[in-house]
Amino acid sequence: MISKSQISLIKKLCLKKQRRKTNLFIAEGQKVVQECISEKLKIHRLYSLESLDKCDSQLISTQEMRKISNFKTPSEILGLFEIPSLGKMKIQKIDIVLDRIQDPANLGTIIRLCDWFGFQQLICSEDSVDCYHPKVVQASMGSISRVRCHYRNLQNYFQNQTRAVYGTSSQGVSLNDFAFEEAFVLLFGNESKGISKNLYTEISKWISVDKYSKKNTVDSLNVASVVGICMYKIRNENHYYN
Amino acid sequence: MISKSQISLIKKLCLKKQRRKTNLFIAEGQKVVQECISEKLKIHRLYSLESLDKCDSQLISTQEMRKISNFKTPSEILGLFEIPSLGKMKIQKIDIVLDRIQDPANLGTIIRLCDWFGFQQLICSEDSVDCYHPKVVQASMGSISRVRCHYRNLQNYFQNQTRAVYGTSSQGVSLNDFAFEEAFVLLFGNESKGISKNLYTEISKWISVDKYSKKNTVDSLNVASVVGICMYKIRNENHYYN
Repeated sequence: MISKSQISLIKKLCLKKQRRKTNLFIAEGQKVVQECISEKLKIHRLYSLESLDKCDSQLISTQEMRKISNFKTPSEILGLFEIPSLGKMKIQKIDIVLDRIQDPANLGTIIRLCDWFGFQQLICSEDSVDCYHPKVVQASMGSISRVRCHYRNLQNYFQNQTRAVYGTSSQGVSLNDFAFEEAFVLLFGNESKGISKNLYTEISKWISVDKYSKKNTVDSLNVASVVGICMYKIRNENHYYN
Repeated sequence: MISKSQISLIKKLCLKKQRRKTNLFIAEGQKVVQECISEKLKIHRLYSLESLDKCDSQLISTQEMRKISNFKTPSEILGLFEIPSLGKMKIQKIDIVLDRIQDPANLGTIIRLCDWFGFQQLICSEDSVDCYHPKVVQASMGSISRVRCHYRNLQNYFQNQTRAVYGTSSQGVSLNDFAFEEAFVLLFGNESKGISKNLYTEISKWISVDKYSKKNTVDSLNVASVVGICMYKIRNENHYYN
């Protein structure tokens, strides 16, 4: 059984304001919930269709799960977890910075890429989509439990920046022949508008993934695709440690 | 004004069966509709909030657009286009093959990647998501108008295959050091299950994108991320022409 107030809380957690107020977020599906548990995120409550091996959960019916699920086909398990404390931003050789990413699936995929390529933190402009949005958590496939997203005013962040700042666009120098320095900031912009104009002065070099289409009309790649390709290239060039 | 029968047709086009029956698909949003028009796809009908410069369209209200739109925030334009004739599968040096891709956003992103990296066709198993699914069209950002998706029984496709067949998984040889042959087939599998077991015997080599996370729990990348990284690597190694 699930109470009305529990349903109401879960519905509210789709809103950033309510997540901040309660310090809780929703993780759904076997894999994502499992990752949050493995990473020792504090469980507020688990709802499941069947009893679980290692955790206490509240058993609910498929019909009840349908009421609280964000999926078309409701999953067998949905968990409410405490948002882990963020801690201070670490000083690292390479910073990955996102400016105004709006699509939750893109941010989730980027968080998953960070996790795979060993970037433990991500810096996002304050107007980027919230990393605890249910669809971000879902697309991250649980990687949100390991990657820390710091939301910052990017103009302040760039003040006193001494490292090279590489901006990605469709009209920069070719990534193929590009040699990254040892320490740098790599900046990616909004899905349709790219990087904010007020950050242009911060950029030391613009880089692009080369296009091999013969048609001029093909004008951009998905931002998460560009992030993946850049991370592959960075790690492939022996920037193994951050 | 939009009639009830028009609304009913548009709703029906969310189903593959109806798309096949009518030979129509839905494209939504300025960018996607524009690409379909530029590529000279036959327009069945355009619905827009304001009159268009170069095309005839049926003017409808925001409320009517809300009824037919697949977006949360309805766009200014929605078009019904004829599904272009597929033609014969071209014989090319490199074939990109997808086995059981289910997520429309993944297929759309992969089609966009094909377009960017100059792969004009894509081979999909018959049980992959339909490339004219509204969400695929959307995620392809119009690239569906240029990339041809051939749906095939993959076991038949692989019969008489003389090229090397590379399968992607999380446990193959490192992509970093891998040298692609001049002609080959590159196979990607389902989001959670990977490549079908009955295709294993076709695979000459398994390849993987190297992981740099120190944690063992990170177990996979998004399939579209892997496709993007592989295509970058292929083109970067001077396989310029297909």
